Amino acid sequence: MSNRRDFLRTAGAVGVLASASAMANDERLAKLDTAAKRPVLKKDLFAEPVILETVELLRHGDNFICRVRSTEGAQGLSVSHNAKMVDLYPVAINRVLPFFVKKDARELDALVDEVYVHQSNYKLQGLALWIPLATVEFAILDLLGKIAGRSMGQLLGEIHHPQVAIYQANNFRGLSAEESIRRIERSVKQSAAQAVKFKVGGRMRQVDRPRGRTEKLIALMRETFGPKMTIYADANGAYNVPEAIRIGRLLQEQQIDFYEEPVPFDWYEETRQVADALEIPIAGGEQEPSLRNFRWLIGKGALQICQPDLFYFGGMIRSLRVARMAQAAGLTCTPHISGTGLGYLYMLHFVSALPNAGPFHEFKGLSRDIPFACDSSSLKSEAGRITVPTGPGDGLVIAPDFLRKHKPVRA
Amino acid sequence: MSNRRDFLRTAGAVGVLASASAMANDERLAKLDTAAKRPVLKKDLFAEPVILETVELLRHGDNFICRVRSTEGAQGLSVSHNAKMVDLYPVAINRVLPFFVKKDARELDALVDEVYVHQSNYKLQGLALWIPLATVEFAILDLLGKIAGRSMGQLLGEIHHPQVAIYQANNFRGLSAEESIRRIERSVKQSAAQAVKFKVGGRMRQVDRPRGRTEKLIALMRETFGPKMTIYADANGAYNVPEAIRIGRLLQEQQIDFYEEPVPFDWYEETRQVADALEIPIAGGEQEPSLRNFRWLIGKGALQICQPDLFYFGGMIRSLRVARMAQAAGLTCTPHISGTGLGYLYMLHFVSALPNAGPFHEFKGLSRDIPFACDSSSLKSEAGRITVPTGPGDGLVIAPDFLRKHKPVRA
Repeated sequence: MSNRRDFLRTAGAVGVLASASAMANDERLAKLDTAAKRPVLKKDLFAEPVILETVELLRHGDNFICRVRSTEGAQGLSVSHNAKMVDLYPVAINRVLPFFVKKDARELDALVDEVYVHQSNYKLQGLALWIPLATVEFAILDLLGKIAGRSMGQLLGEIHHPQVAIYQANNFRGLSAEESIRRIERSVKQSAAQAVKFKVGGRMRQVDRPRGRTEKLIALMRETFGPKMTIYADANGAYNVPEAIRIGRLLQEQQIDFYEEPVPFDWYEETRQVADALEIPIAGGEQEPSLRNFRWLIGKGALQICQPDLFYFGGMIRSLRVARMAQAAGLTCTPHISGTGLGYLYMLHFVSALPNAGPFHEFKGLSRDIPFACDSSSLKSEAGRITVPTGPGDGLVIAPDFLRKHKPVRA
Repeated sequence: MSNRRDFLRTAGAVGVLASASAMANDERLAKLDTAAKRPVLKKDLFAEPVILETVELLRHGDNFICRVRSTEGAQGLSVSHNAKMVDLYPVAINRVLPFFVKKDARELDALVDEVYVHQSNYKLQGLALWIPLATVEFAILDLLGKIAGRSMGQLLGEIHHPQVAIYQANNFRGLSAEESIRRIERSVKQSAAQAVKFKVGGRMRQVDRPRGRTEKLIALMRETFGPKMTIYADANGAYNVPEAIRIGRLLQEQQIDFYEEPVPFDWYEETRQVADALEIPIAGGEQEPSLRNFRWLIGKGALQICQPDLFYFGGMIRSLRVARMAQAAGLTCTPHISGTGLGYLYMLHFVSALPNAGPFHEFKGLSRDIPFACDSSSLKSEAGRITVPTGPGDGLVIAPDFLRKHKPVRA
């Protein structure tokens, strides 16, 4: 990684290399494009068409379930990003779900692209469009997995990770460095995670509180967890470029393992400037809605760890395209996921099929709002690792009583 | 404009100028930042606080009205972007409107920034967040205008344009070049516009239909309307870079006056490449949700005509920041607006206060769904110009019977 950065830096400073650099840049991007264009869904698992007969959004309280049924009577279910779906269900009902009715689910790679252009939906690009799409996609993958007798991960690739190692995420902004470290220690003890992420700075350019918290906490983290612990830092877009570089140097002194969103997510050029100035890997992409911008961020060396959110970015197929571009650039992928609904379950299936998965993945504690049974996994952290359910589909059975309480949402 | 481009192109080709170019770039961006930070709302028109007592979304069928009331009993109204609000009202109700209750409307410049960070709303960046915000902002500006006895435009600046010259927009994709030109002629005759915009290519990388339509239509447009007519071309993100340049050269041969969205809206670097390769001014920004990305597009010479959409971009204050950055770079602003609700009314007020307004502004025909009375303008094109209502506020009275049919929307 640092070789690549050195190359980029030198090419920028010594102008006579500019046209050689432009050619190298074109070649890099061509590699990314080839990677992103490879088919994702393993269509050859299905000899016959799988026509979607109904595509429904069901609701009970603030819980949203998508149910898809094939003309042959097979069924797939997903639980949405409920905390956001309470604001977005009309987008799902009016703009996304109806598009999939009567379509062949085996064409899912193409369908997730077509729904973007359908009725000019691209104008909504952002999680407002992508969460409804991800919700449908997960239900369709569950359906296809049930038909083929495969897990969601097996529909997308080989299983590289039957277990997923987690990092313990937390957010104690506003508390003193000392109180923060006490709580972080406690949460790490509970999950037995071998890696931990902590927050630096104030979210999206807000002031760091209490004053001086970040500088103190950076030192305390390494002191508390020792030299062998993997430690990540997340700024949530806290800084401008000079501040981001100053804090980044403190992180480097403490051998912190990555530095997430040092500047606001839509400061693309500035993210690259921070990456160029530092050796610590820069992580980002949770808020990124555009495949084209991921291509830029990867191609220009602005990100070293790619973090598409499986819901915010529109599902596993789109996220795998990002992961494959990252792989083509020699980078890893650590998808972001929120602590709502069954997000962690989808993260586990996705990571199971990722050849270039990061070593540890986000864990905020599994929501207990959804009653389910799972034969193949406790879905709990055991010595810092969670077993990926083996399917078919999502590998769960949502409690039938609970499912029955849900009623179809109308526009 | 072409001087600036020549400079950028030379700096790119002759690498020894790289660091001089980087300094010039920093200076350019600093100018844009200064322009974007200038206060917008004329607070000194209000001696006393204007505390918002209620902020409501009202609905009747698919029509949405925002009503704000001050503690002193003043009232402001706006009509939303109804075609999109049918999908977004829960965002408005849950995430945007409640934020404004009990706030001082005189602090509107700061409030539109604060609501972006409030409850991590920035994750929704895009029209899903910005249309609800614009809807509230227009109602608050109407309220403030009514209190101060000024038009919406007068709250934001001096009145530079008491009348706004229009261009006739149209969309006849899918019809032959010959049939398209017949319909375009008819619509131009109706509005008596002195400028016209036509569509080239297929929306968002779709195939141009019927085959060869675009090449034929480009030549027919100039032939039909003659050398004095202002003619704009809109590609809606039809092309990749080589195709965009090829079509751009055809447009240049016919002296077409601007070229809108030659590549998809989120292809930032590619938009710049097209701009660098052509002399025809590049227009864009309708789909751009981020002030930071407008700064990049303007600062890097990727756009020559800036087109924030007053609804999609979150209202007049945010759009005026873009227009001011454009002005600092010697560019014009031609806001985009959709043909729904009272969009054109807000466009007229906004343009009235724009020192660097483009010569002609978008017109798709005023919606007749909203019954209103307006003393100061017919709101119709008269010899290609529309008179801007003189206020106070929006300058309209929405029919009381119609308003009464609307009921508050609950989450």
